[in-house]
Amino acid sequence: MATIIKNKTLKDLGEAGIIRLVQGKVSPQLSPHIRKGIGDDCAVLETTEGRALLVTTDTLIEGVHFTAQTLSPKALGWKALAVNISDIAAMGGVPRTAFLSIALRPDSGADFLESFTDGLKALADKTGIILAGGDTVESPSHAMITITLLGDCPPEHLIYRSGARVGDDVWVTGQLGNAAAGLFLLINKKVSDVSGYKLLVQAHQEPMPRVEMGRALGESGLVHAMIDISDGIAKDIGHICQQSGTGALLQAESIPMSDELLKLAAEAEKSPLSWALHGGEDYELLFTASSADEEKILSLTSKVLGTHAAKTGTITQDEGIWLQTEKGKEPIQSGGYVHF
Amino acid sequence: MATIIKNKTLKDLGEAGIIRLVQGKVSPQLSPHIRKGIGDDCAVLETTEGRALLVTTDTLIEGVHFTAQTLSPKALGWKALAVNISDIAAMGGVPRTAFLSIALRPDSGADFLESFTDGLKALADKTGIILAGGDTVESPSHAMITITLLGDCPPEHLIYRSGARVGDDVWVTGQLGNAAAGLFLLINKKVSDVSGYKLLVQAHQEPMPRVEMGRALGESGLVHAMIDISDGIAKDIGHICQQSGTGALLQAESIPMSDELLKLAAEAEKSPLSWALHGGEDYELLFTASSADEEKILSLTSKVLGTHAAKTGTITQDEGIWLQTEKGKEPIQSGGYVHF
Repeated sequence: MATIIKNKTLKDLGEAGIIRLVQGKVSPQLSPHIRKGIGDDCAVLETTEGRALLVTTDTLIEGVHFTAQTLSPKALGWKALAVNISDIAAMGGVPRTAFLSIALRPDSGADFLESFTDGLKALADKTGIILAGGDTVESPSHAMITITLLGDCPPEHLIYRSGARVGDDVWVTGQLGNAAAGLFLLINKKVSDVSGYKLLVQAHQEPMPRVEMGRALGESGLVHAMIDISDGIAKDIGHICQQSGTGALLQAESIPMSDELLKLAAEAEKSPLSWALHGGEDYELLFTASSADEEKILSLTSKVLGTHAAKTGTITQDEGIWLQTEKGKEPIQSGGYVHF
Repeated sequence: MATIIKNKTLKDLGEAGIIRLVQGKVSPQLSPHIRKGIGDDCAVLETTEGRALLVTTDTLIEGVHFTAQTLSPKALGWKALAVNISDIAAMGGVPRTAFLSIALRPDSGADFLESFTDGLKALADKTGIILAGGDTVESPSHAMITITLLGDCPPEHLIYRSGARVGDDVWVTGQLGNAAAGLFLLINKKVSDVSGYKLLVQAHQEPMPRVEMGRALGESGLVHAMIDISDGIAKDIGHICQQSGTGALLQAESIPMSDELLKLAAEAEKSPLSWALHGGEDYELLFTASSADEEKILSLTSKVLGTHAAKTGTITQDEGIWLQTEKGKEPIQSGGYVHF
């Protein structure tokens, strides 16, 4: 491996190459107490008496994941926790305990940290999470926030990415693309112009992860594979397919989009479908289930969400991710956010 | 609180003020499953069947905690894990599962990440730790590494910072100041001059946390309070005393120092005692026990370490941290590393 990566930068390797490098180093020695290591939304550790321990960690970096222009300190605190909660929800688990590591410049205002903590606490209180520890350190330049979140789940209710079966329906909760459109709006418009797009701005700044829905889907026993949509549905269905050894065909007309998204896309001459497929940061749940269980999925999701989940495609034997439009079938370019 | 911190920077607040701010926001609602939240080496979570779950998280930032001049990528991987292991050891626990979040510039060499992972893996293998997940993201400038480490311990063997009793002996494993002297050497000398100081350089670059010793001390039932020395013994005995409602008197002549430290101090015209008291990054164990158990502590530490721990002071009723020297008793200025 050393010769292959010689003289390459991380940008050359790409995100997948980086994960392969780290995984290649560490995965040979999985231990009996680890059900799932690197490669799903959370790691799954064995514990006793019928609860599996879930662990996830996510980092937000100033200038990469957020800027002061698009996220207030309070929204940042909320969002830093939300992205982790979403990973627990995507396993069917319940989030419990958070650990915060935050690196800030010494000349940051103390009110920044206070507002950040307020935002984090607001979502923690809503979801029953306790902040139980962490680390506050000095950063010479950009702010960095890492949250590690622990949760749990009865092992029989866990849902992995790897369980999709050929012929499964592909389902998605909520509407896609709102967060990406909200980010576009915040970057390109004056704050006074944002008032007609509250849904989009909120989707970017204060996403509400689907904990109740994820848990109910896990308990239902109906779901074969699940992931949360952080990179965009096109890339995230790819993660499910890669781990399940399948492909998928998505129906463009069934991708759920909001009126605000359509309105902004028309106004800005942007493709709403591109936001919905590739925008990312939706923090909705993407899952697959047998087509025989369609009615049960509709009924369960209606009960929990108020509106039912949307059936947006099918798991296929042929590999690759395809999109069915009026014009025919085309491969989807993976356009999610690319690190490195 | 808002009015108190208005217009203050984090530098104005200081590390203790920052911890108070965050703690004030989050601690009111401790939950039954959390035995210990913010304020000890690890958080302690209740689990079932006689094991408590320990969680700790530590961040290393380029330019603050390390530079390429003083730590190779491999040593950085080792050290990033070591500082977390040391926190688990200081509770009497056993480290089990690590989660890595690493932020690097896109133009970083892939061989940097490979060497970093090799270093981390080397210590993980030595200590039976599995790397079970994480996150690799782009950093616009400085590299940042956060590791969250999980461990466990039978609840009856846990040792907190808060249990010191008046009259206890204060004990320390190993020798102090080596890491600080090693750092001084690496910054101030050419690499070719370092050969006579292998112990000092290794103490800075590849500290070996005291897992076996911490565990044996927990099992012994002899120890009242324990912490690992990361900020320097002067500051870390202060943490024990603050949480125990006591003071401490250290004996200057009993602070264990290496021959290499004394030699370098003489050569560089530095105070060896200052390195030993305030240098920090020792990752040795500092603990208190009844003076009636002196023989048992000597015997147990000899058995595990090969050489016995050093009795360096006494827990006192009077608050404050004092140092007994040939010249008399003087208060110790807290000179550990100050964040913000």
